[in-house]
Amino acid sequence: MTQRRLITLTTDFGTGSPYVAAMKGVIFSITPAATIVDVTHAVPPQDIQAGALVLADTTSWFPPGTIHVAVVDPGVGTTRKIVYLQLAEQHYIAPDNGVLSRLALAARPSTIITVAEPKYWLPRVSSTFHGRDIMAPVAAHLSLGLDPAQLGPEQADIERLDWTEARVTANKIEGTVQSIDSFGNLVTDIPEDALANVPRGEETVIHCDEHETHGIFKAYADQPEMTLIALVGSHGRLELAIVGESAAMMLGVAVGTPVKVTW
Amino acid sequence: MTQRRLITLTTDFGTGSPYVAAMKGVIFSITPAATIVDVTHAVPPQDIQAGALVLADTTSWFPPGTIHVAVVDPGVGTTRKIVYLQLAEQHYIAPDNGVLSRLALAARPSTIITVAEPKYWLPRVSSTFHGRDIMAPVAAHLSLGLDPAQLGPEQADIERLDWTEARVTANKIEGTVQSIDSFGNLVTDIPEDALANVPRGEETVIHCDEHETHGIFKAYADQPEMTLIALVGSHGRLELAIVGESAAMMLGVAVGTPVKVTW
Amino acid sequence: MTQRRLITLTTDFGTGSPYVAAMKGVIFSITPAATIVDVTHAVPPQDIQAGALVLADTTSWFPPGTIHVAVVDPGVGTTRKIVYLQLAEQHYIAPDNGVLSRLALAARPSTIITVAEPKYWLPRVSSTFHGRDIMAPVAAHLSLGLDPAQLGPEQADIERLDWTEARVTANKIEGTVQSIDSFGNLVTDIPEDALANVPRGEETVIHCDEHETHGIFKAYADQPEMTLIALVGSHGRLELAIVGESAAMMLGVAVGTPVKVTW
Repeated sequence: MTQRRLITLTTDFGTGSPYVAAMKGVIFSITPAATIVDVTHAVPPQDIQAGALVLADTTSWFPPGTIHVAVVDPGVGTTRKIVYLQLAEQHYIAPDNGVLSRLALAARPSTIITVAEPKYWLPRVSSTFHGRDIMAPVAAHLSLGLDPAQLGPEQADIERLDWTEARVTANKIEGTVQSIDSFGNLVTDIPEDALANVPRGEETVIHCDEHETHGIFKAYADQPEMTLIALVGSHGRLELAIVGESAAMMLGVAVGTPVKVTW
Repeated sequence: MTQRRLITLTTDFGTGSPYVAAMKGVIFSITPAATIVDVTHAVPPQDIQAGALVLADTTSWFPPGTIHVAVVDPGVGTTRKIVYLQLAEQHYIAPDNGVLSRLALAARPSTIITVAEPKYWLPRVSSTFHGRDIMAPVAAHLSLGLDPAQLGPEQADIERLDWTEARVTANKIEGTVQSIDSFGNLVTDIPEDALANVPRGEETVIHCDEHETHGIFKAYADQPEMTLIALVGSHGRLELAIVGESAAMMLGVAVGTPVKVTW
Repeated sequence: MTQRRLITLTTDFGTGSPYVAAMKGVIFSITPAATIVDVTHAVPPQDIQAGALVLADTTSWFPPGTIHVAVVDPGVGTTRKIVYLQLAEQHYIAPDNGVLSRLALAARPSTIITVAEPKYWLPRVSSTFHGRDIMAPVAAHLSLGLDPAQLGPEQADIERLDWTEARVTANKIEGTVQSIDSFGNLVTDIPEDALANVPRGEETVIHCDEHETHGIFKAYADQPEMTLIALVGSHGRLELAIVGESAAMMLGVAVGTPVKVTW
């Protein structure tokens, strides 16, 4: 028996939303042996950038051939397209509104197709829920082996958001808080690579807004509770945390706050 | 290999509740190859009506033969019955307290059985958690092919809640907000059919409490952000939304609020 | 085809956390036919005791051979060990910080192994996310039949937390609120056994903080709404509930509050 290809779902529907269940019902109706994995449904409503970051941080952990469906879709029912994209052996279906553009920053997609062939959609398509009516059935058909070329014509590129990049100079790195995880840790856009020549000791100062901390550590528990600590987190980027607490809450820091490393 | 029939779970246990995991453990102990899908566990505690609406809106998307278990059960351990119901090729197991009565409004159940035969329950049944001790094992046995007639005797009907229906007259429709989705959109009880002869343009006025909007649109993005908009949503019913925001929050509107369409 | 052994996940990552999805991606990359069940991801951040209680209350419902991964891991990246433990036909992988110690109170683990052999980990191990880099791949290899003895050397015992036990005397039982469920019910550490000779009627008084109630009932609905009621709940322990409401919220009671039964 051929293993069906895995399908993952990433949406802004809210955890526990029955809209997710409707998408799963549609997928199982086409391929009852599907394996469906929830990446998250807690993307803030209509926050395309947050959805894009989740996809970039998470989907590469899945086996080659996985089909990732992402529904953060404020423009549903308008002229925005739906795209299929292949990138580094992972497959994506999403509205073409920038939600795939973080993934496509470093690596180049090998295929980009406009999802245009209604043969693989539900017979009746609403103008408010293309996740259920178009993206779910397309993912189900792909998991059964449908050639993506059947979905529609190729297109040259996807919609892209502007992604800031940390600026690295001789003795300073300037970045921002790019996301906040469920522990309240502040994940920056400063990659591990950029820190290769930065000393780990007290002489290195990390500023975040008006807060500061010294040194770059390895583990959260390397400092006492209630201490602001900097380390390279599991995303492979500089992270600021308060040991045992939520840094976001205690410091009142939000996504977009500048972070500066000097030594 | 026969495909095991899908089992879905709908409860008011709260997202992340270990009670859900206990039910899944019981199901897997009987049928290790089960596929279990969470519809939602975010039904407000003991809100039978809200549970009934979720089931009616969601379960029809699943493949024929799916077994839906619904546990919103304030009367657990009392004389309320547990029922098995077949309706339009979907199968349901739930307390007989009205939670299945929205489904059974339009379509007539083809079979209604009182779940009474302890042979298919856990050996030891608590008086506070029949979801785990009775409904989960019964669902597992059904998914393995048990004839529902073995569960107990037939019964004539199920418990029914009073469901309001939108009143339609020559130039007016009066309904109510029936549910609020995770985006804060206000989903009414006014079906698409009732709107067949209603003009879509400015001449049609939709009132919700003291708020009003003109025209019926197709997509959320058909109006600018922060605008109150009316459209036929993905449930096939009239819906009120504030573009890019939560209408429920911004308007302070709750379930039960009257909605009036005039033209 | 041999049935793959079930893998469950219990974490404090928060419901909807993409960290959970990363762990699942790692597992599926090693064993694409895995069945993964979420026990809960709503353990309060870094609350080892709460995680330990969830594991003790929930994992015994799963079929023999299930592999339970528990990640509540404030000491990640420090010298704390990771252990594999077999107990009553269930298998556990977790940081050795006490999170398995509630399970190991009554029953004696048959095997305890220090997870030390990097061969079954991801090639690159971060110092902040051993759930993804060590525990998930180890669970995947075990589910494929790896002999636990390959994971590392045996160790004599696990780290243990202090667990209070209800004190039972001739006409008094003194315990505490040990956990609070999603309905706000107060679950105590007083086991059903201890109540064997306690009369169920009005003469028995249950105190919780300054609140009191009389009698021990069977079902929540045995008393009118808004009444404080005591019963033996689905965990097999004495539970206090307010019918139709959240006792935790209405009484302002937290974990650790003393509970006294007298008759």
